[in-house]
Amino acid sequence: MMDAAPPPTFSPGSPDYVQRVHDSFAQQAFMRTLGVRIVEVAPGTVTLALPFRADLTQQDGFLHAGVTASLADSAAGYAAYTTMPPDSRVLSIEFKHNLLAPAVGESFEARGQVIRAGKTIVVVQATVSALRGGQAKAVAQMQATMMRVEA
Amino acid sequence: MMDAAPPPTFSPGSPDYVQRVHDSFAQQAFMRTLGVRIVEVAPGTVTLALPFRADLTQQDGFLHAGVTASLADSAAGYAAYTTMPPDSRVLSIEFKHNLLAPAVGESFEARGQVIRAGKTIVVVQATVSALRGGQAKAVAQMQATMMRVEA
Amino acid sequence: MMDAAPPPTFSPGSPDYVQRVHDSFAQQAFMRTLGVRIVEVAPGTVTLALPFRADLTQQDGFLHAGVTASLADSAAGYAAYTTMPPDSRVLSIEFKHNLLAPAVGESFEARGQVIRAGKTIVVVQATVSALRGGQAKAVAQMQATMMRVEA
Amino acid sequence: MMDAAPPPTFSPGSPDYVQRVHDSFAQQAFMRTLGVRIVEVAPGTVTLALPFRADLTQQDGFLHAGVTASLADSAAGYAAYTTMPPDSRVLSIEFKHNLLAPAVGESFEARGQVIRAGKTIVVVQATVSALRGGQAKAVAQMQATMMRVEA
Repeated sequence: MMDAAPPPTFSPGSPDYVQRVHDSFAQQAFMRTLGVRIVEVAPGTVTLALPFRADLTQQDGFLHAGVTASLADSAAGYAAYTTMPPDSRVLSIEFKHNLLAPAVGESFEARGQVIRAGKTIVVVQATVSALRGGQAKAVAQMQATMMRVEA
Repeated sequence: MMDAAPPPTFSPGSPDYVQRVHDSFAQQAFMRTLGVRIVEVAPGTVTLALPFRADLTQQDGFLHAGVTASLADSAAGYAAYTTMPPDSRVLSIEFKHNLLAPAVGESFEARGQVIRAGKTIVVVQATVSALRGGQAKAVAQMQATMMRVEA
Repeated sequence: MMDAAPPPTFSPGSPDYVQRVHDSFAQQAFMRTLGVRIVEVAPGTVTLALPFRADLTQQDGFLHAGVTASLADSAAGYAAYTTMPPDSRVLSIEFKHNLLAPAVGESFEARGQVIRAGKTIVVVQATVSALRGGQAKAVAQMQATMMRVEA
Repeated sequence: MMDAAPPPTFSPGSPDYVQRVHDSFAQQAFMRTLGVRIVEVAPGTVTLALPFRADLTQQDGFLHAGVTASLADSAAGYAAYTTMPPDSRVLSIEFKHNLLAPAVGESFEARGQVIRAGKTIVVVQATVSALRGGQAKAVAQMQATMMRVEA
């Protein structure tokens, strides 16, 4: 067995990448509607948090899959954005979202992690975890493709 | 070239499948939060509609990809549900969602269409269209896997 | 319910798009290894065919999912290629492949159909059908993202 | 930020899980056709290896995306299989495969890693790496859904 490839590390695409993520996030009205806030921004990774709300649930009282997907898509998109040069916008091309367990908890976090940062295409994984009684549990997993377009 | 396989048709999983979709949908709090309503329920297909709202947008003013995914996931899930016997619940296992064009419009529709209804696994496609000035345009395409679990 | 968006039609990206598909396909050594041939090339769609071979199967004697994915990926990629200008190469960015039924048959066809042709990103669906005793049956469904890069 | 969920560990589904993977793999004719061999089998993870061959390439001389998908699908399927009880067969429901970099190298490895093992549904990630001049590089990433069916 060959040695595993070393985990990728990423350089920020611009010196003010943290501020740029916060500025763009502040314009995502839907994140405000859901009650999402930024937890962490670092090169190649962004973590977002969402407290549980009963008006975000599906028919069984779990968080709707569309909500965990929204959270993961934004975390993935901003993780990609941290690697992009200043004159960039980030667009979601597509994402694939597996539901791993019922999304039950007091709050939820999505952590986006870039796994490949090309000039145009950035591939990102995002894990959504539920926090319940002090325990974190993965409830959804996304693999997403983001695109840089010139601003 | 062989003749194309005939388009699949599906039998309702229970006589009251329309009512069952409406009953379950009424319990999806998140659909109310978004402002989604049911347009059509038929064997193997469900169409949902969502008027544009500024509080559902991303940083460029388009509908957030998570919103079109939520709409498509519910349409796909209920399309699958129409094919299931009475003692069933439907769960999203996973979905893959491509963004085709900026989600700009006065209103949006997602039409879920079952392409394969197994006993446990149901595969569904869903197209999200934007309506703008009387013209419909496809803005997102989902391919999803739904699962029947005994109620 | 709004009227469904009209089915998309696509213009060839170059006058000699049929020849270009055949030329590129002839260089895909793996297609020869599998025994795949081109059935049809038209703007936005390509159909490929593969006779059954026992050395392409998985542990239950069905065609391996990787084989139907290979067939669908090439059909999807060349469907995208028909829409691209002459100075283009086509790359698969990603694909998502659902297995619908055991891939049992005398031969198999994959039909790729572009659903959105952007300048850089082309989204394609591909259906793999099995032919058995004169009947065609869908056995796999792909949704893929292709990219144009300048040659 | 909540602490990250601890990485999952998995118990073997049967005492002879290693032998069971080898036995089933030996029946996958297509793996022989490609020249794939098993590198490692452990609870929740399987690694497969494939030497480069020119007859497995696409039009640019890289390994065909269908080949890396075949390798990743088998690694993912057998990783899932290690977690299943003795009376089980494993079926691929679907997979999503991102191409990260041209698949150029002397040999390739796919490592499947279960991230969620349910009774019926098992979710797996698989990374395909290329080995070139002693260096490993990730060239493809899969997220897959496997299903247990009673043998």
